[in-house]
This record gives sequence, structure tokens and C-alpha cells, in this order.
Amino acid sequence: MGSIPVLSPSRRVRRTPFSPGVEAAGVKGYTVYNHTLLPTLFRSVEEDYRHLKSAVQVWDVSCERQVRLKGPQARALLDVLTPRNIKVLTPSRCVYVPFADRHGRILNDPVALQIGDDEYWASIADSDLALWVAGVAAAAGFDCEVDEPDVAPLAIQGPLSDDLAARVFGDEVRGLRHFGCGRFAFQGTQLLVARSGYSKQGGFEIYVEGDDIAMPLWSALFEAGADLDVRAGCPNLIERVEGGLLSYGNDMTRENTPLECGLGRFMNRSALEGCYGGRAIAAEMVAGPARMIRALAIDGSVPGCDRAWPIWSGDRRVGQVTSAAWSPDFGTSVAIAMIDRDHWDAGSELDVETPDGTRRGTVRDSFWI
Amino acid sequence: MGSIPVLSPSRRVRRTPFSPGVEAAGVKGYTVYNHTLLPTLFRSVEEDYRHLKSAVQVWDVSCERQVRLKGPQARALLDVLTPRNIKVLTPSRCVYVPFADRHGRILNDPVALQIGDDEYWASIADSDLALWVAGVAAAAGFDCEVDEPDVAPLAIQGPLSDDLAARVFGDEVRGLRHFGCGRFAFQGTQLLVARSGYSKQGGFEIYVEGDDIAMPLWSALFEAGADLDVRAGCPNLIERVEGGLLSYGNDMTRENTPLECGLGRFMNRSALEGCYGGRAIAAEMVAGPARMIRALAIDGSVPGCDRAWPIWSGDRRVGQVTSAAWSPDFGTSVAIAMIDRDHWDAGSELDVETPDGTRRGTVRDSFWI
Repeated sequence: MGSIPVLSPSRRVRRTPFSPGVEAAGVKGYTVYNHTLLPTLFRSVEEDYRHLKSAVQVWDVSCERQVRLKGPQARALLDVLTPRNIKVLTPSRCVYVPFADRHGRILNDPVALQIGDDEYWASIADSDLALWVAGVAAAAGFDCEVDEPDVAPLAIQGPLSDDLAARVFGDEVRGLRHFGCGRFAFQGTQLLVARSGYSKQGGFEIYVEGDDIAMPLWSALFEAGADLDVRAGCPNLIERVEGGLLSYGNDMTRENTPLECGLGRFMNRSALEGCYGGRAIAAEMVAGPARMIRALAIDGSVPGCDRAWPIWSGDRRVGQVTSAAWSPDFGTSVAIAMIDRDHWDAGSELDVETPDGTRRGTVRDSFWI
Repeated sequence: MGSIPVLSPSRRVRRTPFSPGVEAAGVKGYTVYNHTLLPTLFRSVEEDYRHLKSAVQVWDVSCERQVRLKGPQARALLDVLTPRNIKVLTPSRCVYVPFADRHGRILNDPVALQIGDDEYWASIADSDLALWVAGVAAAAGFDCEVDEPDVAPLAIQGPLSDDLAARVFGDEVRGLRHFGCGRFAFQGTQLLVARSGYSKQGGFEIYVEGDDIAMPLWSALFEAGADLDVRAGCPNLIERVEGGLLSYGNDMTRENTPLECGLGRFMNRSALEGCYGGRAIAAEMVAGPARMIRALAIDGSVPGCDRAWPIWSGDRRVGQVTSAAWSPDFGTSVAIAMIDRDHWDAGSELDVETPDGTRRGTVRDSFWI
């Protein structure tokens, strides 16, 4: 292989309201997520990682599109679409809600927000979940509109997130608990802010509605945080694998069930009745999943993981690695793997087939952080 | 803006069975389409264009994923999902079938293929149409499974396509009519071949099932076509805009209706009854669309069109350009635009607001080729 090819621009790969800020900050790499640009790199993956774990970053995560359910039956629709009990979902608390198809296979794993009495948003991972929701709503006759409004989430992530957010939104924002959310004023607009985000370093996500307020907010955060060394950032591969944050499309796909992905703790029998996939998930709860996500330490460094790497026990294929990176902090390559039941116990030693050769992998009982 | 950022690799942005061939051919640019790599550039857009219009190219269009409808009610499901009459769909003829939501808004514009008595594929544009189809099937209780098998289409495009295809599949392949399809032997496997493709230069699409046969087919085409100057290629921006080939996500989105996109000719009143979006489309047929896709000539050269460019008549916004490129053959910039009814007549002169300044645009009565 030669140099890494460029990403060709087109309207179909959507820019975001924060793209001018991202470009001015010197973005070096992108991926495409929900038909939208998602930055992947600013200085180097390792430098971005070090900074994320020590300071504070502002992330353009506009690619986390919002699927809006609006109408008298919005909550009822959401309820049949997720195997999780959503009783705890209120305007001041968002909830992680995996969605499954009728066979209990994962379609997406969004965070649900309650916006009003008859309005809910699902802040989605990388699949057009609006099409599933709209299909069910149309065919089952729910009195609920389903669309994808232009809401652009902006994340503040890193150990200094509270300090930065407080300077812009006031000290009350410090009071938000994990997955708590509320409205906070910025330049006369009440913005929806949640304590959430795709890192283990703490922080917030701000759901920015409308382009007008987007770049002013971006700029205000950089002005307010200059002495905190605030930088433009993005989800960091090393940090997310250390923390075991799963990525839909990488570590789980429609081939997988919620139990295989370790999401069983979000489900209970009662919520499974009447929801799509509920019967299949209930059956799997009885039998136990045949394979499951595991943290895997891999000896030495590894190449970029752009395809599933087979995992072998002798000449038997027993799983695959789907995300991996060298971790400077832990002095090993860290990986997310899906491993068959007979081989998933902590301490199990396996062979990982990478494009650069076979490496020894050891199953761990938990992720690194 | 500095240099164009690279596309970061990950499993989520899927490689294809032809990726080794594409890389060996020196691919310089990609886009992401249905979560899959789609090459955009080999030598230069203009050199690739010249070659496509004079010789023959092999394209990795694995990103045209197949949504499979399989079961006793597969055809009935397909029938309610498209406003087009599918009577003409047979195992030897594929059909272009726009899909719309219950409000008559376009969700995708696939080509449907009949694989067997109870099996149909939709070869999709860039949205997860499987989720819509699965949602309707699940909620309406159709006896039909919906999934997305790993079928990797490979296109042969260019004026010498028949010569190249005949050398690999035999002279019978020349007999396929436009959108005709059939099974042709290659190394002992019966491959599904259709006379179709995303250019106006003629050619075929081969629906390759299974990885094993993929690179052997790729290599066989290059060996057989060496004296035809066969090259690796990809959909070409200039050629597709000259020819008025619409791109879902660029030129039409879920904001648009089939009539706005000029697809009214594929619909008739009888097929609209009982299909999703049918009532809205029938109403729009009576009223006429408020805006429509038009060919637009733009004076001088234009930058890359990575966002919608507003079109103005005086101080009134009357449309937008969504795809544009300089055409060496026609000595003008060619563009695809959505233009309001009062301004869409051929000869209408309008102002196009590009990031590089305002250009004069003239509406044409047809595309260039």
C-alpha cells in the first residue's frame, strides 16, 4: 500500500456548522459517520490522546445525528423500539438505549433524550436509524412523525471539562450528574447540555440547534479556555479502546446481539415483552450468549485495524479483533475483541492474525480504565 | 483550507473484496458510501474522464449494497415499497425503483433484481434502506426476511465494455438489452450480469457473491483487456453531471419527492394505490412539483461542490446547485440544480453563489449527453 488516500469532498458527505472551526484548527484526518464528516486527527493520534487525558478538548460530533420522534405516541413508539426499560428517561436524564431488529440483532445504540411531552430524540451511532423508526411507525400506524433535524452536537471532553463548561454556561453545569441534562443559557439561547460523551475523561455534549449559534459557541469555548490549553479534538482510538467504548460498525454490527456486546445489564425481562427483538433477547438470556466482547491485550505494536482480525486457538477460529491500538500508558496494544464462550475467560491466551503477522493476545477481565 | 485531509481507516468503513486490486492500481482518493470504500480518483478526474469516454474501465462498486427480500411475501413487500409498477421486473430484467416514505419523500433509488421466485434484491444508493424495509416488514407482519448479504458489484463501463465483457463471459453477453440481466459462467460459477451502470458510456454490472471469485474476476478482466487499455476506474463526477445521473445524498435527499427529481415518468396512478407515499405523490402529480432538477450551465470554472450552492434571481433564492464540474468536452461548467417552478424554464439566467464568488448560470432543456 502507498500513502493513505484523500477523502473526496461532495455534498453527500456533509460538512457541519463547526467545519470552519475544525478546518482552522488544522484537522489532518476524517472519517465519515452518518454521511457526515467526523474529524479523526489533529496533531497525531498519540499527541491528541495525551492532551485528551490531561486537559480539555472541544469535539465536532455533529455526525451524531438526532432521530426525532414527535407526536402523541412518540414515547410509546420509543418503548417498543428498545429492549431497555425507559422509565428513567425524563427531560433531566438521558438514557442509553440499544435498538434491535425483530431477531434481536443490534441496529444502533443511541442515547435517548426527552425534549418535551411528545418529543424524543435518539442521538445515533453510524446507521440510518431514522429509516427503521419511520418504517415501524408507518407500518404499525403510530401517531408520531419521524425525521432527522439538523441538530449539531458539540462535545467538551477531558479532565478540565467542568472548568471550561462552567466558564461558558455558569457553575450550575457542574451539578449535572452522569447522563443528567438540562438547558443552559448561551448568548440568549437555552442550549441542551448533557453530561455525556464518547471518552472516559468526563465532559459534556451540547445539542446545538441551528447554524447561527454554532461557531459563536465554538469560539466562546476557545476564548474561555485559553489558559486551560483547550484544543480541537475528536474521539481518540487509543483512549476509547483503553476504556472499552464500543463503536457500532466496528465492534458490533447487525450480526451481533446486545448480550454479545455486554449490554445485558441494560435489560430486564419485563421491558422485553412487546418490544422488537424482545423474544430473541429473552431466549438468549436463558441460553447465554455464544460469544462476547472482551478486552484483549496484544503483545507488541499493531498496524491500523481496518478489518476484522481473526483470533485463533490452535487451528480453531474462536473470535476476532475489531479495534486495536498501541497504548503508551499501559505499555501494550489494547484491543476490543469478540470471543467465543469457550475461550473468553480472563487469562486465556490466543493468537491474533494481523496483516503484519500473528501476535499473542491475552483475554482480560476488564478494560484498562 | 490547507491540504485535503486523509480518510482514516477503520473496520466501520468497510474494505471490499476488490480492495487489493484497487490499491494495486494506485487509487488516490475515496469517498464513503453505504459504510464502504468507493474509489473516486486514479490519475486525475479529467484523465479518468477522458479514458472512461474512450476506452473501458473496471469499477469497484461494492458500495452498492444489496438489500435482500426473501420469503413468500417478498414481491408483495417490494410492491408496497415503491411507487413504480414492478410488473416488468423478471429474472431477466431489472428495474429502477425509487422508494419513498409515507409522505412521498425519497429514501433511496435502487435497482431491483429478481433472483428467484421468492427472492429480490435492491441494489441501493447511499442510505441504509435495509432498515426501512425491515421496519415495514416487521411492523406490518410480512412473511419476508430482510438482510444485506455480502454481494460485491463490479462494473465494466466505457465504449469498449461489450468487447471486454465478451472476452470473459462469451459473446452472448452482447445480447443483453438495457437493464437486461442473466447468468454468465466464469471459472465454473454462474455470475449475475446486468447491462447497467452509473455512467452514460455503456457497460455492465456483475453481482459477485462471495470473496473467492472476486479478485480472480478482477484479474481476468485486466488480462483480457490489456490491448483495450482497460484501467481501474470509478464513477466520474464530470461524466455523470454531463449525463444528468443523479446521486442520492447529493442531488436528492429525503427533502425531495420523486417528481421533483424528474422521476415522474417511472410512475403511474395505478401503482400509487396502496404503496408508501403513493397518496402524497398522486396529489403532487395533480398540483405539479414546486421545484425540479434541471441541467444548469455555469460560466467559467467552479470549485469542488461540497455543499449546496444557493441560486438567486435578483435577491430571491430560487434554488440550489448540488453537483458541478468543469467539462472539457462542452467548454462550460456543468451542474445539476434544483430550481423553483417560476425559474426552471430553459434559457432562464440566474446567479449561482459559489464559495469562490457568484457565477452566471443558464438553465438548459436537457443534460449534455
